[in-house]
Amino acid sequence: MAKRGVVIVAGGSGKRMGASLPKQFMLLGGIPVVARTINTFSEALPNADIVVVLPEEHIALWRNLASRFDVAPHRCVAGGKERFHSVKCGIKVLGSEVEYIAVHDGVRALASKRLVIRAALAVEEHKAVIPVVDVVDSYRRVVGDASEIVPRSELRIVQTPQMFSAELLRRAYEQPFDASFTDDASVVEALGEKIALVEGERTNIKLTTPEDMAYAEWLLSREE
Amino acid sequence: MAKRGVVIVAGGSGKRMGASLPKQFMLLGGIPVVARTINTFSEALPNADIVVVLPEEHIALWRNLASRFDVAPHRCVAGGKERFHSVKCGIKVLGSEVEYIAVHDGVRALASKRLVIRAALAVEEHKAVIPVVDVVDSYRRVVGDASEIVPRSELRIVQTPQMFSAELLRRAYEQPFDASFTDDASVVEALGEKIALVEGERTNIKLTTPEDMAYAEWLLSREE
Repeated sequence: MAKRGVVIVAGGSGKRMGASLPKQFMLLGGIPVVARTINTFSEALPNADIVVVLPEEHIALWRNLASRFDVAPHRCVAGGKERFHSVKCGIKVLGSEVEYIAVHDGVRALASKRLVIRAALAVEEHKAVIPVVDVVDSYRRVVGDASEIVPRSELRIVQTPQMFSAELLRRAYEQPFDASFTDDASVVEALGEKIALVEGERTNIKLTTPEDMAYAEWLLSREE
Repeated sequence: MAKRGVVIVAGGSGKRMGASLPKQFMLLGGIPVVARTINTFSEALPNADIVVVLPEEHIALWRNLASRFDVAPHRCVAGGKERFHSVKCGIKVLGSEVEYIAVHDGVRALASKRLVIRAALAVEEHKAVIPVVDVVDSYRRVVGDASEIVPRSELRIVQTPQMFSAELLRRAYEQPFDASFTDDASVVEALGEKIALVEGERTNIKLTTPEDMAYAEWLLSREE
């Protein structure tokens, strides 16, 4: 079986959360958000090498917190200035035997095992895979001081986990940082590589506000 | 003061709701979703002529339901096949003295009075106004069997209430139906008119799923 690496980016400062605890550490269904994320990957991809990227100043806090809960084995590494630099830090500590790398937002704690497995199978065929979902709203594009309709049928919302052949992702992250890199797919795409799409999950949201946390708690309570 | 008309479209069949009662009639904070919407407009725009467009088969149900709650005065009218036709039915019953018309999704019961007033003031300066919010996700556009990044900074999510000069909106709705009409702005835009944007509200979502209802209940409970 292919050796897989997982880079979980938990670098946000949590300023939008309205709480002193960074959002990735808040309890969701009784365990920290990032712990839930780690456990999902551990169950979906047994034997994967899981690396959690955190701001340097949060590592001790996280180790302390993680020791109090049932969290699957993982390593911690300090991140960088932008998400780009943090992902790069995570990739660097993965061994050369790793063939595929998944990059995931730590606060997307609602991603299902099914989704992780779906993307993991797809990346064995394609070299770069991202989950997307259809949009339900109407959209406009602002162009100068005017705006125009964006055909809804063409639009997709991009999620994580994004999965790549390790060789390709490492090569992509050798490029200098560019402000247009909004996700890992955009970094890989800058090499001229094609991105394959798999179906994401509407509930796989980034938990960034108190409203998101309330919604997530409600979803979990419904599952039980 | 300008005479205003409000067309509230409550035509959805509620199939996505997983309940027998159409979603626009479900209770939210103790009153039906559409009742809450009607009351918001009535409070924000006193003396506005409010018309609720419903599927023909729901009118008796709604009248019965509305009589049991504290709902501001409004008229009911039967809608048509597509949203386009329903809006047209609503516009038709508004008197010729109406100078501005607001069109609103009945299930956007969380729109605030502030938002309604903001749009109502803006339409006195511009002839076509819609509320939009920034996007937080990343987006891709599917083009054939490939896909490309859509710059997030250019994208806006379109909401209602959309407000127009009555003369312009009536003229727009004289056009034959086209599948590209995804909202009222797109109908008006087909005349070559420019659409002005005002700031919408992140919480002004369409209540279409049980998750949305749970989220809405939570938002309301927080306000109290």
